[in-house]
Amino acid sequence: MGNKKIVSDAVIKRLPRYLRYLTELKRNDVLRVSSKELSEKMGLTASQIRQDLSCFGEFGQQGYGYNVEFLYDAINKILGTDKGFNIILIGAGNMGRAISNSDSIRRRGFRIIGIFDIKKELIGTKINDVEVLGFEELQPFIKNNKIDIAALTVPREKTKEVAEKVVSYGVTGLWNFSAMELKLPPNIIVENVHLSDSIMVLGYKINNK
Amino acid sequence: MGNKKIVSDAVIKRLPRYLRYLTELKRNDVLRVSSKELSEKMGLTASQIRQDLSCFGEFGQQGYGYNVEFLYDAINKILGTDKGFNIILIGAGNMGRAISNSDSIRRRGFRIIGIFDIKKELIGTKINDVEVLGFEELQPFIKNNKIDIAALTVPREKTKEVAEKVVSYGVTGLWNFSAMELKLPPNIIVENVHLSDSIMVLGYKINNK
Repeated sequence: MGNKKIVSDAVIKRLPRYLRYLTELKRNDVLRVSSKELSEKMGLTASQIRQDLSCFGEFGQQGYGYNVEFLYDAINKILGTDKGFNIILIGAGNMGRAISNSDSIRRRGFRIIGIFDIKKELIGTKINDVEVLGFEELQPFIKNNKIDIAALTVPREKTKEVAEKVVSYGVTGLWNFSAMELKLPPNIIVENVHLSDSIMVLGYKINNK
Repeated sequence: MGNKKIVSDAVIKRLPRYLRYLTELKRNDVLRVSSKELSEKMGLTASQIRQDLSCFGEFGQQGYGYNVEFLYDAINKILGTDKGFNIILIGAGNMGRAISNSDSIRRRGFRIIGIFDIKKELIGTKINDVEVLGFEELQPFIKNNKIDIAALTVPREKTKEVAEKVVSYGVTGLWNFSAMELKLPPNIIVENVHLSDSIMVLGYKINNK
């Protein structure tokens, strides 16, 4: 992993997809897979796949292909999903609940250990066994727990304020669900889920097919 | 628009971002913007921006920059958001409700005109003034309305079946929220929102910063 810094964004974005396919292969008790088979499933060229995976070390064997279990474990290690991540969820509305209920997120080692909202009627209720706390509990909770990620599912107009607050409390990874770009110090890592961007791309493709 | 086929995926994916920035500029009554200013806001080079926008015609003027209103309208036309799209939402759970409540989607001309679920207790209730219907209403509804997009927010294990059903009824645009890849005829356009992929990329960046 000494050369991990040169891995491009495009490769990183493909790793979860590899993991999804490998999970399916494991489920079906497939022991090995060739880069040709993987490439057909993923819609990439075999050489692209060999190149992608070579960024992280030597996984394949000429004429044998990839050992599914080994490659699965290796990608989990690269992504850090083997160790897991602690998440706090801020905003217990529909999007927050959808995330909290997501098996595909939980299965990858992302644990929601705290949920926060300002709505009095939600505070004290539980979502998947995690109690909803008020915003005044945010700072002590972040201080007393190792938080890797804050998922921001608050209304758009609250997002900037909440983001700046959790960053000031020490959280450095943000998962932002609002349709806005956050301006934060360079050491803060933000991953955006812009649903409106996604559906606009779909709309474009429908109009231009 | 005669050369629209050569526009790359990367450019298309950036168009909604341009639209977001231009919306902000319009809100602040900014009349024109240079490619340099736009580039600073978007974290792209000025020449990248000139190149992106030149795919769609001549928008800029040397020494003047871009007319915000004109560029905003032009990108809306390119994305088709000026005409709007009709959506049916299948699955009235938390994710479905989050989409239905999203202002940023509605504002871009995406209209949810039908909502479907199998849960008896949901059928007949209303979400943002749209009545939830049972699955037996799907086929006639699609027949009697021009549906551009079906948003699939059903549980993962139901997604394949529901996707194949709506495609057989004539829907050709799918917005898929399950953590699975759909295999459908090539004329069907699928845009995926894989939340677990997004958070795994964030996890990787946190581990490797």
